[in-house]
Amino acid sequence: MSLMADLLSTLFERRYAAAETRDDRPMRQLAQDLLTSRGEVSGMALARQILDRYAARTDDRKRSFFEYLGRELDIDADAMRSALEAYGADPSKRNYGRLMAASEPRRQELARRLNQVPGATGRLVEMRADLLRLAGDDPALARVESDLRHLFASWFNRGFLVLRPINWESPAHILDKIIAYEAVHAIHSWDDLRRRLRPADRRCFGFFHPVMPDEPLIFVQVALTRGIPGSIQGLLAEERPELKPGEADTAVFYSISNCQAGLAGISFGNSLIKQVVEDLSRELPQLKSFVTLSPIPGLMRWVESEGLGDRAGSPETLRLLAAHYLINAKRREEKPLDPVARFHLNNGAFIHNIHPMGDLSPNGLTQSGGAMVNYLYDLKRISKNHEDFANNNKVVAAKEILNLARAPLPAPQLRTGTDA
Amino acid sequence: MSLMADLLSTLFERRYAAAETRDDRPMRQLAQDLLTSRGEVSGMALARQILDRYAARTDDRKRSFFEYLGRELDIDADAMRSALEAYGADPSKRNYGRLMAASEPRRQELARRLNQVPGATGRLVEMRADLLRLAGDDPALARVESDLRHLFASWFNRGFLVLRPINWESPAHILDKIIAYEAVHAIHSWDDLRRRLRPADRRCFGFFHPVMPDEPLIFVQVALTRGIPGSIQGLLAEERPELKPGEADTAVFYSISNCQAGLAGISFGNSLIKQVVEDLSRELPQLKSFVTLSPIPGLMRWVESEGLGDRAGSPETLRLLAAHYLINAKRREEKPLDPVARFHLNNGAFIHNIHPMGDLSPNGLTQSGGAMVNYLYDLKRISKNHEDFANNNKVVAAKEILNLARAPLPAPQLRTGTDA
Amino acid sequence: MSLMADLLSTLFERRYAAAETRDDRPMRQLAQDLLTSRGEVSGMALARQILDRYAARTDDRKRSFFEYLGRELDIDADAMRSALEAYGADPSKRNYGRLMAASEPRRQELARRLNQVPGATGRLVEMRADLLRLAGDDPALARVESDLRHLFASWFNRGFLVLRPINWESPAHILDKIIAYEAVHAIHSWDDLRRRLRPADRRCFGFFHPVMPDEPLIFVQVALTRGIPGSIQGLLAEERPELKPGEADTAVFYSISNCQAGLAGISFGNSLIKQVVEDLSRELPQLKSFVTLSPIPGLMRWVESEGLGDRAGSPETLRLLAAHYLINAKRREEKPLDPVARFHLNNGAFIHNIHPMGDLSPNGLTQSGGAMVNYLYDLKRISKNHEDFANNNKVVAAKEILNLARAPLPAPQLRTGTDA
Amino acid sequence: MSLMADLLSTLFERRYAAAETRDDRPMRQLAQDLLTSRGEVSGMALARQILDRYAARTDDRKRSFFEYLGRELDIDADAMRSALEAYGADPSKRNYGRLMAASEPRRQELARRLNQVPGATGRLVEMRADLLRLAGDDPALARVESDLRHLFASWFNRGFLVLRPINWESPAHILDKIIAYEAVHAIHSWDDLRRRLRPADRRCFGFFHPVMPDEPLIFVQVALTRGIPGSIQGLLAEERPELKPGEADTAVFYSISNCQAGLAGISFGNSLIKQVVEDLSRELPQLKSFVTLSPIPGLMRWVESEGLGDRAGSPETLRLLAAHYLINAKRREEKPLDPVARFHLNNGAFIHNIHPMGDLSPNGLTQSGGAMVNYLYDLKRISKNHEDFANNNKVVAAKEILNLARAPLPAPQLRTGTDA
Repeated sequence: MSLMADLLSTLFERRYAAAETRDDRPMRQLAQDLLTSRGEVSGMALARQILDRYAARTDDRKRSFFEYLGRELDIDADAMRSALEAYGADPSKRNYGRLMAASEPRRQELARRLNQVPGATGRLVEMRADLLRLAGDDPALARVESDLRHLFASWFNRGFLVLRPINWESPAHILDKIIAYEAVHAIHSWDDLRRRLRPADRRCFGFFHPVMPDEPLIFVQVALTRGIPGSIQGLLAEERPELKPGEADTAVFYSISNCQAGLAGISFGNSLIKQVVEDLSRELPQLKSFVTLSPIPGLMRWVESEGLGDRAGSPETLRLLAAHYLINAKRREEKPLDPVARFHLNNGAFIHNIHPMGDLSPNGLTQSGGAMVNYLYDLKRISKNHEDFANNNKVVAAKEILNLARAPLPAPQLRTGTDA
Repeated sequence: MSLMADLLSTLFERRYAAAETRDDRPMRQLAQDLLTSRGEVSGMALARQILDRYAARTDDRKRSFFEYLGRELDIDADAMRSALEAYGADPSKRNYGRLMAASEPRRQELARRLNQVPGATGRLVEMRADLLRLAGDDPALARVESDLRHLFASWFNRGFLVLRPINWESPAHILDKIIAYEAVHAIHSWDDLRRRLRPADRRCFGFFHPVMPDEPLIFVQVALTRGIPGSIQGLLAEERPELKPGEADTAVFYSISNCQAGLAGISFGNSLIKQVVEDLSRELPQLKSFVTLSPIPGLMRWVESEGLGDRAGSPETLRLLAAHYLINAKRREEKPLDPVARFHLNNGAFIHNIHPMGDLSPNGLTQSGGAMVNYLYDLKRISKNHEDFANNNKVVAAKEILNLARAPLPAPQLRTGTDA
Repeated sequence: MSLMADLLSTLFERRYAAAETRDDRPMRQLAQDLLTSRGEVSGMALARQILDRYAARTDDRKRSFFEYLGRELDIDADAMRSALEAYGADPSKRNYGRLMAASEPRRQELARRLNQVPGATGRLVEMRADLLRLAGDDPALARVESDLRHLFASWFNRGFLVLRPINWESPAHILDKIIAYEAVHAIHSWDDLRRRLRPADRRCFGFFHPVMPDEPLIFVQVALTRGIPGSIQGLLAEERPELKPGEADTAVFYSISNCQAGLAGISFGNSLIKQVVEDLSRELPQLKSFVTLSPIPGLMRWVESEGLGDRAGSPETLRLLAAHYLINAKRREEKPLDPVARFHLNNGAFIHNIHPMGDLSPNGLTQSGGAMVNYLYDLKRISKNHEDFANNNKVVAAKEILNLARAPLPAPQLRTGTDA
Repeated sequence: MSLMADLLSTLFERRYAAAETRDDRPMRQLAQDLLTSRGEVSGMALARQILDRYAARTDDRKRSFFEYLGRELDIDADAMRSALEAYGADPSKRNYGRLMAASEPRRQELARRLNQVPGATGRLVEMRADLLRLAGDDPALARVESDLRHLFASWFNRGFLVLRPINWESPAHILDKIIAYEAVHAIHSWDDLRRRLRPADRRCFGFFHPVMPDEPLIFVQVALTRGIPGSIQGLLAEERPELKPGEADTAVFYSISNCQAGLAGISFGNSLIKQVVEDLSRELPQLKSFVTLSPIPGLMRWVESEGLGDRAGSPETLRLLAAHYLINAKRREEKPLDPVARFHLNNGAFIHNIHPMGDLSPNGLTQSGGAMVNYLYDLKRISKNHEDFANNNKVVAAKEILNLARAPLPAPQLRTGTDA
């Protein structure tokens, strides 16, 4: 389909190209044209040229294009001020229209016009990925980045996303991307991937946008189990008995990966989990628990910062440290320090259990001394949990975990000084 | 698919519903909740309730909901002013973010959050259709309408639209809509429709949005012919010889209809024509002309206003009047008075010919005394024509038509008074 | 898809055509070539020529082609006899192969080779329709027809058929065919069709073959109701309350139509009903009864033949006559005279009820004096009913109907003779 | 889809099962039932049971089932003889029907009835694979195998097959099978596969049957090149420049693999090559040559048998030996000894060139001393070549190759005996 669409518009372009000869005017000139009357008729050709030239640029020249967008296609503060005054004096439809027009930097319209080219949406997403990489402290680039985020929040609205199962019948070029994007527990080979996708007790789901059908935006991997598992090694073991889906009582979300750097800050995870819970509930009504098996990425850093690094060796102590970390360690707005905890608690899950030997991979040991945590989604309590967390910073957890978090921390081990 | 999606989310809702009991709080309370933290977790349920309740309302109560949106979820001019000052003093990323946030009325975010429900996009489009119908002079409603238009311009961006052929293999429920939406030459029955869609020398194409797959946004009907036709009667005759597509040298766009009242002001026609020209050029490379057979909707009104009503009876004179009308009759910005002319001329077409007996239907006779016009799309000249028209109000036309428009108008016929 | 396939093979053909120049040899020569070595390489071109020429022939010339097939591509009885002897003497693999080859007339292989052309299957089906129409008493044509039937029984095996719902979202060109093929209760217009397909309490399903995706083979129309209905007028009334599918307790099969004359004698109805019962049971588990509302096509003919024509006016008497007819009137193998009764009884249904005023259409009154019958499919009894019917000619019926059938027939009314 | 179909029929079965309780009668009893009246109504349940039980059997018990099919469901030679006599005396439709019925062993009807179960076709194909493996010299099993082949030739008729491109967007479970079935140049890993499928100058196509959508029947791998290549190493090199498809002038068929052991003897290769030539000609009209790069599997065995094994070391000599082998070495019907040569020559290709160092893999060296051959498909000459080959055993080859084949063979090297 996209190939066909591409061919079609290429043909149209070619005619234009023949009529106009390839444009060697500066990018900003092309952008100006696209924003004005010419853009209404030969917009597709102009937009394609801008995108193609952008893609071919070095980082330096990309940055200079961003500076143009950030400075020259910015809002006009004076115009905005006078529109605001006019609107204050007479809030008519006309004045409202002017105010809204003045409040939107012209680069937003430019982005919308660029987007008419088939495949442009993905390229604009990449453009924002470039911006995030190159922006540094430059407020002009930050403005451009912020505008794209605002646009993408509208374009990638939940209502436009499509949930698709990803399995061993999915196209290989999409599976290639699953391997590349998996961010939590690396997929080492196609055989590894097959083990995660083909068994009947394994599922994977991703959100896609209709104009980027080959690019997952986010995906989650799920294991169907009996009982709530405590270790990723067990879950991903090469030789393990396969469960009939109808015999499972638990769905375990063991990996959630965002795929598009250019969509950073636009949250899909909450919707994805909810939708997958729905799919699975419907297909397998006997499922009783929806739970994660999650990493605790900041645990060891925090333990070290507390001077307790030497104490983390014992499973019991590590579990206690993890409970303290997840429940008591806060950042400025009184939310948990741990980003994964913040995500699931804000979604309305609660801390169900902590497993000190949950992930014995090198990365797991480094991040969290091997500890993992189950966040449990109890549909009846999700809404209340979320409100308590969002409004009162309350971290809901199983009683046993709460008790651990109230128990005293171990004292830092005395360091045997050199003068001892 | 949509049924499935619907079932799935219904299930999720039901659980929520079970947990929360159906909400009987006022709509504005639900809207507030959707905009705040609660909306993050139980947004789907809230959004569905708002949409369902809205749909069940009378016009009066719809209007009161719009007033709420227009007045209470408006921009805060003071906040905007102070954000503007802060940004003026320090154009930092943070201040820019605040300014942008202050410049967007909260009803925009509300619309985005409503849109997460499957099927919501179409319902929001209907909401704007209601608004256009009910707004009257109320600036508060005008603001809401304007905001939705801005949002839709982004959501229905060309890059997200899909061109689909509409033919005798299309689903009946979509053909039902073609019959209903046809705005130029009414389709009287399914047999009439079959005559327009099934023959190999007839085509129809529409733009669709992925989340409204059953709703055409706009469609165009095309006849493949030898030579440029001058009458719609001939084109739509019941018994006519069918042409093999490979023998056609001309594609005639004889009807373009917008389908969604709620998308008024968002232009698809230009893109549609360009894309269809592309499709057809590729499939039938021997096509030489892309031309319309268009109505002249304002002709007789103008003729009457010039006091020339009695002169329009002769084909020759009608043709001269039509040339004058199309080329010389202007409205305030010096663009042609005729809306169809403005559309095609702005797209870069030019006036190729005028046919005084082109449409002898009652409607055709009433509007234009039976006259029709061909606008011709010459790919090599489209861009220049458009610029001349857009920047200099120049109406490009065939020499013969230009000459007609320069010839003197007939004098108004003397009325034989009763006292003669 | 099929267009594409067609284009592709056309291209190949054209090259052949260019190389060979169009063949003007007699059809039988082409058929010989297709059956021999040449057919292996240029079979597609030969097969297409034969099919095209056949389609262009008059009935007389079609008949002469059939005579050729029936006489010259027949089995060779001598060869068969000697192969049989050889096999009797030594039942080796080789001798078995020879016997099987000798037992198959060469026209079967011809049909298989013709079938390689895209779209050929449908054309061969039409060929058999021609045969059935033209065969008369000619045994040579009867042989050809019989061979095609044997082939089609293999090609249209249940395992290759696809059940597809037919509804208001189906392509118009297929709905055109539903209107044309409906054989029981005529569909008078597209509005009539919409009433049968669009309401949520109406369903339609058809069997399709993958290579004839535009041609239904058979379809059944179903009404979802509360209780078992007794009249087709009520079922098809223009203004009737629509039932929510979840509230229905009964699925009524009120029309089953075979579509392809060329597939006469290959039975799909039994499989279709079973599959639809399955689909519906799964979607609507609350359904309790699966029942037909069927015509009694031979009733009035039988009543007349019994000299009881004048008695059929009273509903009570008509009901009694119908019970007698369905249960007692037999043809030679002791099966019921009525073909619809034979079909459903053989499928394992039983006679549940008779409604004397079930079909008051002109056709209904003519055929059966207005009477209709419900055959009920009770899944638990289907198998036993079928066996009783198939092996012992037992007609299973509700007690009340059985009692009616045992009651004495009314005496023929005395005709008042002219000499009385 | 197939899952859904499966669920549906499972449901139906379950009801039957509930009604009948699972059958523990012998297989032959079930088969008898399926062939008689019971099979008309509860055929799906019976067929499924037979297939399930068959699949669970050991080879020994499968063989005993085949013996039953071969002996007890055989033709009845006496019945056939008397039907033949009756037909000889009176070739009526009725007698023809009886003769045809008598000529078909009942196991054919059994196979058709088994086929009504979703997925049965593939299982019957596996059944024939078992037969080919287990038949040995038993003529009863040979008869069953022969009957299935006859049935499959009808079911897998070219007209029912679908050509599908296989590429990097194909489902992984199908690509798994491509890796498994590749019979000519083994695919060592998914990276290896990606190199063959993803580049724009590589193509792969397979035939599929609609009821076995996950199972390729045969596939061909194609390289687009400039000029005709002489070595598989070059073609499959890991680091090679990629050609734009529009720049290629040659399509090289470098591997053709049959996938289904149970379809042995049913030829798809000829049709596949023709169809792919068509697809590619249409997509890339600039292609000039369609050529293979083929192994010469029997070369070294023949060289050894001629006592020339020691001479094959020199490329020049090997080329001469290969020309002799391909053109002069014959088996009994005067066709070439080499099976690949027989296949392509019978398709109408001719021997274009021989490359002594074409395949330096261990397998290539063992089979052919490394030599490969190009068979060229010249569309204008295909038909004539085929006829010459089929009727007169003429091997068409390039003049240079013919000259080589006419040159004297080298003398066998004298073996230096131990007693010299």
